[in-house]
Amino acid sequence: MILTLSCPDRPGIVAAVSGFLSDCGCNITDAQQFGDRSTGTFFMRVVFERPETLADEAVRAAFAPLAERFAMDWTLRGDERRRVMILTSRFDHCLADLLYRWRVDELPMTITGIVSNHPRDQIGHVDLGELPFHHLPIDVADKAAQERTLLRLIEDTGTELVVLARYMQILSDDFAGRLAGRCINIHHSFLPGFKGAKPYHQAHARGVKVIGATAHYVTADLDEGPIIQQDVEPISHRDTPDDLIRKGRDIERRVLARAVGHHLEDRVLLNGSKTVVFAD
Amino acid sequence: MILTLSCPDRPGIVAAVSGFLSDCGCNITDAQQFGDRSTGTFFMRVVFERPETLADEAVRAAFAPLAERFAMDWTLRGDERRRVMILTSRFDHCLADLLYRWRVDELPMTITGIVSNHPRDQIGHVDLGELPFHHLPIDVADKAAQERTLLRLIEDTGTELVVLARYMQILSDDFAGRLAGRCINIHHSFLPGFKGAKPYHQAHARGVKVIGATAHYVTADLDEGPIIQQDVEPISHRDTPDDLIRKGRDIERRVLARAVGHHLEDRVLLNGSKTVVFAD
Amino acid sequence: MILTLSCPDRPGIVAAVSGFLSDCGCNITDAQQFGDRSTGTFFMRVVFERPETLADEAVRAAFAPLAERFAMDWTLRGDERRRVMILTSRFDHCLADLLYRWRVDELPMTITGIVSNHPRDQIGHVDLGELPFHHLPIDVADKAAQERTLLRLIEDTGTELVVLARYMQILSDDFAGRLAGRCINIHHSFLPGFKGAKPYHQAHARGVKVIGATAHYVTADLDEGPIIQQDVEPISHRDTPDDLIRKGRDIERRVLARAVGHHLEDRVLLNGSKTVVFAD
Amino acid sequence: MILTLSCPDRPGIVAAVSGFLSDCGCNITDAQQFGDRSTGTFFMRVVFERPETLADEAVRAAFAPLAERFAMDWTLRGDERRRVMILTSRFDHCLADLLYRWRVDELPMTITGIVSNHPRDQIGHVDLGELPFHHLPIDVADKAAQERTLLRLIEDTGTELVVLARYMQILSDDFAGRLAGRCINIHHSFLPGFKGAKPYHQAHARGVKVIGATAHYVTADLDEGPIIQQDVEPISHRDTPDDLIRKGRDIERRVLARAVGHHLEDRVLLNGSKTVVFAD
Repeated sequence: MILTLSCPDRPGIVAAVSGFLSDCGCNITDAQQFGDRSTGTFFMRVVFERPETLADEAVRAAFAPLAERFAMDWTLRGDERRRVMILTSRFDHCLADLLYRWRVDELPMTITGIVSNHPRDQIGHVDLGELPFHHLPIDVADKAAQERTLLRLIEDTGTELVVLARYMQILSDDFAGRLAGRCINIHHSFLPGFKGAKPYHQAHARGVKVIGATAHYVTADLDEGPIIQQDVEPISHRDTPDDLIRKGRDIERRVLARAVGHHLEDRVLLNGSKTVVFAD
Repeated sequence: MILTLSCPDRPGIVAAVSGFLSDCGCNITDAQQFGDRSTGTFFMRVVFERPETLADEAVRAAFAPLAERFAMDWTLRGDERRRVMILTSRFDHCLADLLYRWRVDELPMTITGIVSNHPRDQIGHVDLGELPFHHLPIDVADKAAQERTLLRLIEDTGTELVVLARYMQILSDDFAGRLAGRCINIHHSFLPGFKGAKPYHQAHARGVKVIGATAHYVTADLDEGPIIQQDVEPISHRDTPDDLIRKGRDIERRVLARAVGHHLEDRVLLNGSKTVVFAD
Repeated sequence: MILTLSCPDRPGIVAAVSGFLSDCGCNITDAQQFGDRSTGTFFMRVVFERPETLADEAVRAAFAPLAERFAMDWTLRGDERRRVMILTSRFDHCLADLLYRWRVDELPMTITGIVSNHPRDQIGHVDLGELPFHHLPIDVADKAAQERTLLRLIEDTGTELVVLARYMQILSDDFAGRLAGRCINIHHSFLPGFKGAKPYHQAHARGVKVIGATAHYVTADLDEGPIIQQDVEPISHRDTPDDLIRKGRDIERRVLARAVGHHLEDRVLLNGSKTVVFAD
Repeated sequence: MILTLSCPDRPGIVAAVSGFLSDCGCNITDAQQFGDRSTGTFFMRVVFERPETLADEAVRAAFAPLAERFAMDWTLRGDERRRVMILTSRFDHCLADLLYRWRVDELPMTITGIVSNHPRDQIGHVDLGELPFHHLPIDVADKAAQERTLLRLIEDTGTELVVLARYMQILSDDFAGRLAGRCINIHHSFLPGFKGAKPYHQAHARGVKVIGATAHYVTADLDEGPIIQQDVEPISHRDTPDDLIRKGRDIERRVLARAVGHHLEDRVLLNGSKTVVFAD
């Protein structure tokens, strides 16, 4: 099982948690802690094996009083796979990459559906297999209608994580707020470098020598959410905007896949407008 | 010798240049070309060996008519070392690094002087050897006075390149303008990410996962000059602003040294507000 | 068109080539040269636009005498796409990646077929579309038989480049020799670090902190061919051999795709047991 | 204080350690654990603040019985700085870099001396300040004599860590054995790529596209000790062996400085012939 927690820092947290696990007969196989001095918050992630005689639910129930005592935000997960919905557009390189990694079991998740505002035949290069595909076109006169349909779909399918795999739509503040902490976006820029539209064209015009991409949790302000993962590639004067877009595809899919993987393994904890990432 | 040129693109430039060199008995050992389609400008750098019977000046004189015919901006240098002045502050890691590389002959230059607005004893960790040191304090009531002194020093010493090795002073527009194309600054940020003061604190507050530095030619707007070199390092939630500053020192000195080295080898050509870098 | 050439170094090569192109009315848009002093060989790659009135074949015919005069190894290609056959095994991540890049037009090639010694249903995650698939099982009693069939297939389909996308079979010396210079392999190791089988297990046992992959031209000695491209990723003590294999997949597909892309754009020239790569 | 420990893995270790610290009134500010399943060994590093009323020595004494119970290899350090001796040769770039980082307080250590088999005036570029310098020439007829002198110096100065900063001498097995676990070497190669002498020339001859360096603990077999840190840089066909040596200097000093820094902060734990590095 994987336990994550954050709480106000004070002496005795690790002792209490590890003592609890030891008393339950659980064996810690991996653990990381971090105390943020600037906010006085303590973060912890523990991977442990529970005795077979103890059900996941029993561990959770036994841990709850301790969690309350330390005022913890906490999660405690067993083997169940996260339920994930992927939203995409005609830019399907991130979708194709996520699906490949899912199929070779790099990303332990259950995909609840693929959603696009474009019809399925416009996602030509990707084999969706038996995955449910939902074409949710946007009515310019009533954009909120599509978001309502989408939100219902997210709820009906028990989706726990929404991945914006180059979805290319501006979300309403209300919609973004409802998905806070459980929706990951890939911004095709090395934030805060080039916010807004066409960042690769902006980067080319400025003549930078490195480009990058950013995976972050969605908040009302699309370019300001807590950053999970970033990566870059060098470029040269020879690169046209089209070259940047091509090179960017590699960075985007790599950065998004890592961020999703870390989220699925409960490695990412929210720390205000930032993240703590207990990477491997 | 090293020839660099830029001119309006049209057929026959390479043929004319290489024909000229061949007719002179020169042998090309390295060459790179680039045509920027968006501006219609052609860039070229050629390294060649001239016959011993031909003086540098003679090659220059013979090339001039051809350069005029194609409306070239051009330089043609022999073995003479560039004359370089280094401006610094109490943050002396870039200075120390440049001096070390100069001493082991990685940076082929003649240092015309070290300038700081702090007295020499505040640059405690660096062995200046016999290099002339100039303490040019700034009079807050008349900042222009120091710049005038500095400019005279630059001229009197025949300085061809000024390196701002964490000089930490805002240059006046007039001063910056006079040094256009021959003054390199290291900005302790991955531009255009965090302009202005204290970029590492800005980066920490935003929670980015990668930091970087930028070497660029100075223009009136200090954060907007043509970028020569950029590089980055990953960081984590554990890094405090002080850690970022420490890690930043490594990136800054590396990026600045590369930019200066490329300039000294005539690898950097200006292309409007951008650069063409014929890197090795 | 793209011209590549290598020949004994001597004065006048660039002048002759660029003069020829200029006389033909061709316009150079990109060019790179390199003289290897240790072997006395000169290498050149020129991209140029020919006048519409001149056919590709006419340029080739006109260039031949010049090439002969300088004893050049040379190629001169127009818009025709290279014909490429991909050999794979059950490890299909490189295959999936190459096909995706081909479909989004990152790799300008015509795929002549996919070959595996495993039946098609064992390549479960990859949509081959209408591409011809050839199941060529290996008879342990007569391994040469399969190679003969394969070689005939390569010839019958007019295949110009064979890509070993984790093909996992030892090629006979004779077969490897016939494909010299036109067969690219991805070795799942940072050569020459861990030659031979199971390099990720070797890397784990040695406790290295960085792993990598190598794309190279095939020669009789499978681990010794001219290297085209290498890349690495940091790893930590937490990584098991399985983690290395997973991280390795990302490096392998990236390195192989770059090597194939460079080959397709005539950026890779052989220099004895090494390569000259005129990268963008 | 910083506690490091390794011991046979079994349930209850973290609980016992954190319970002990909590009972002592200590507050954990950073901690990392790792269980190596292949060897059944558990590793832990804990940073904590002790109450002012408790001396370092008292914490150590109180911890000893617990350590014995779990059969721990352990260290428990307060604020005292490690005593470090640096051995060098005429290749002084690593020495210069370590001294600079020490002076700006990046490397918290007390330098007990600089040792070289060359006289001081051959280390021309580096300001040793008031640091004791020992010229220990090697008598080819009796190499062991110099090692005996060196070993006595190490003992007399209370040196805890010996850094081979491009020392360039083959150590005897006996000498290396005595320094096991407290002597760090920088190997100017990406091990196990090019063992032995002149690795950059080997790398050039093989035509690799990436070079690197390796910092490791010294063992009797100089190229086989536990690896602490590795890093790499891309190179191209243009790079001569001299270019590789120049680029290698940057990698070497960076890799060695990181390894020494990690050692000084008790981040490196030995795991048989490998290391566990609890990096920041």
